[in-house]
Amino acid sequence: MEPIELEPIGVILSPFRSKDQCPIQPLYAGEAEGRVEVFERYAEGLKDIEGFTHIYLLYFFDRGGEVRLVRPTFLDDQAHGVFASRHPCRPNGIGLSIVSLVKREGNVLVVRGLDVLDGTPLLDIKPYIHRFDAIDGASDGWVRGKAWRAKPEGCE
Amino acid sequence: MEPIELEPIGVILSPFRSKDQCPIQPLYAGEAEGRVEVFERYAEGLKDIEGFTHIYLLYFFDRGGEVRLVRPTFLDDQAHGVFASRHPCRPNGIGLSIVSLVKREGNVLVVRGLDVLDGTPLLDIKPYIHRFDAIDGASDGWVRGKAWRAKPEGCE
Repeated sequence: MEPIELEPIGVILSPFRSKDQCPIQPLYAGEAEGRVEVFERYAEGLKDIEGFTHIYLLYFFDRGGEVRLVRPTFLDDQAHGVFASRHPCRPNGIGLSIVSLVKREGNVLVVRGLDVLDGTPLLDIKPYIHRFDAIDGASDGWVRGKAWRAKPEGCE
Repeated sequence: MEPIELEPIGVILSPFRSKDQCPIQPLYAGEAEGRVEVFERYAEGLKDIEGFTHIYLLYFFDRGGEVRLVRPTFLDDQAHGVFASRHPCRPNGIGLSIVSLVKREGNVLVVRGLDVLDGTPLLDIKPYIHRFDAIDGASDGWVRGKAWRAKPEGCE
């Protein structure tokens, strides 16, 4: 298969300048507010986004580090497959976060619950649609009951 | 910002050979079963995925068509911004689907609820984690109450 070339459509501005500061999931980000700046040439594509309370951000882990297919994560000491975790060190390095949409200001979305490093390149925005995306019967897998630990061993 | 180069990690095999056959969301895909073939060199990264009932597939809309930032969708006659919809014709062409994980057979995941064309290049797999991803209070935005229409006007 051919390689696929992507180009950022914007940039995510957040209070988090380093991995140590950055929460691992929007759930742990609390009230952390940030700005999603969509480049002007794509701003038209935001039409009607104001109607959603939550959106998906897809972005590039530009500081993700070396890919390791099996590794410990931020949640426990076991090594898990990278496709069974959300760890940044993954092939293709695409990150996915669900954030609350506070308001739109032209080409900028003010969002809450960010778990993304400041300056992260934005690849896509999709609406979170309760009817499609909130899956009642879904499991937590190995993440069940785990609490977030800021600096687990073997996990940068 | 620099362009970002991605390489497929596998391929999605589905019963849908054309856009006309393909449901627009997993919710409408019913029992459609498919196979997610992860290339052998990445298979190790699937460790522990069996524990999840649902997973996200991230893939490349290789037959997405021309990008239009504002367009009608499969759900109504209004034109919506592409970032307020899941339409394939989007900058960077990354698709996102939540599917049920039926079972793992080595480097292959058997999944249910596919809304993806046969042969679609796979970019990433992430676990769907109920605790993080099922957002109780989220809205449906403009999609609220809309039913899927197979071939809306102005929407290929």
